[in-house]
Amino acid sequence: MLSVFALEGFGEIAAGDDLAALIADAAAGLLQDGDILAVTSKIVSKAEGRAVAAADREQAITDETVRVVASREYPGGVTRIVENRQGLVMAAAGVDTSNAPDGVVLLLPVDPDASARALLEGVVRATGLRLGVVITDTAGRPWREGQTDIAIGAAGVLVLDDLRGQTDASGRRLEVTVAAVGDEIAGAADLVKGKTSGNPVAVVRGLGHLVVSTADAAASVVGARALQRPSATDMFRLGTAEAYAEGFAAGQAAAAR
Amino acid sequence: MLSVFALEGFGEIAAGDDLAALIADAAAGLLQDGDILAVTSKIVSKAEGRAVAAADREQAITDETVRVVASREYPGGVTRIVENRQGLVMAAAGVDTSNAPDGVVLLLPVDPDASARALLEGVVRATGLRLGVVITDTAGRPWREGQTDIAIGAAGVLVLDDLRGQTDASGRRLEVTVAAVGDEIAGAADLVKGKTSGNPVAVVRGLGHLVVSTADAAASVVGARALQRPSATDMFRLGTAEAYAEGFAAGQAAAAR
Repeated sequence: MLSVFALEGFGEIAAGDDLAALIADAAAGLLQDGDILAVTSKIVSKAEGRAVAAADREQAITDETVRVVASREYPGGVTRIVENRQGLVMAAAGVDTSNAPDGVVLLLPVDPDASARALLEGVVRATGLRLGVVITDTAGRPWREGQTDIAIGAAGVLVLDDLRGQTDASGRRLEVTVAAVGDEIAGAADLVKGKTSGNPVAVVRGLGHLVVSTADAAASVVGARALQRPSATDMFRLGTAEAYAEGFAAGQAAAAR
Repeated sequence: MLSVFALEGFGEIAAGDDLAALIADAAAGLLQDGDILAVTSKIVSKAEGRAVAAADREQAITDETVRVVASREYPGGVTRIVENRQGLVMAAAGVDTSNAPDGVVLLLPVDPDASARALLEGVVRATGLRLGVVITDTAGRPWREGQTDIAIGAAGVLVLDDLRGQTDASGRRLEVTVAAVGDEIAGAADLVKGKTSGNPVAVVRGLGHLVVSTADAAASVVGARALQRPSATDMFRLGTAEAYAEGFAAGQAAAAR
């Protein structure tokens, strides 16, 4: 049985707020051993003071960009899908104005896995429970309409459940299956948090088998960075139009030689 | 409060089985108004007799392919990511040998939305409840490691929750946000169904606001086909290498003119 519920009682978060303490307060008496806290990245960004003046939105996106993956112009602007400093491929580098104070835009936490570890440490210290933390953000994806929440930071939780080599109910070996449970947890939490309700933290209960001490598990499967496919092995590391244009220029140059 | 639990008591499903009746039996006394049934596509394929001889796996993939999106050779084979007859972009066209009887591979249901409607009709007839059905399958995605479950068929459930124009907790208009709740439901169900446990159906409770009569809602947001981004508007409709190669050939030809 999986159960997911939102924590209530969060006011506006300000730079410097002790977010772990606020979460521990909101969760007082509600947490159990093995619970996973799914925390919307926006409140982490706010607590960490990751705000810049809204007039600089386009510059902020440029500053957060490591690599442009694709871009498309629309009337009045351009959508840029980029790999950001956190290694995430996201529209607008994850820079967002929703749920942000007037006049500013929010950048993602500098190191969401480190943010998750800090939150976990604080809430575990306050509760004495074995817990996990996932920091979530909303992202689009190729091939599919709409956005889903994904795990951009994690601590104390296995984000990839490697089923390779296991057998199915009939005893046959499973084909390549590594379940991206970190992203599925983030999506499940989104179903209760919503985006308009002002409930930025959800408790995900029933997945204690995925909650591990960071000392017990390889760092490679604990942080949410493990969910990021490196561009070198990504068959979709560039947009179709961008790859075509690169190829076109190279083809012209090759013909000219 | 969202809760998700797996239904038990499913044996091996054979071609011609009345899957709606089997689900209604397994769920007897457990369902409530507003529940969503998340059904693994494999048992739908089995009940619908969508099996072909395993020796023909590569041919089966070719037969299911409408459009090749990307392919990559590895020692001993090739991975083909294609758009299949159902409009889904998936590795191997969604053809699978996991959890399949010996000697056969399973194809996806011909029309997963129609399969979902038939299941919904059967279970609603047996129970008299207002329910939804999502048919799930496991898929990879660009940029992210691991696979998640997605909704490939749906009936009676809003798969896209359009939040555009709504305001956040501070009264600001949300930026472009259409939550792909169908996929988030599929992922949440995967967290309890697992892939090795032989529990092919989960009940997702607490999302009654997404459960709608098909007569109440536009067909465009009820079937899971609404989650498929048309290739014409997909910035990643071709793999990077494939788009580059197309561009290269066009650049050479342009230079030769």
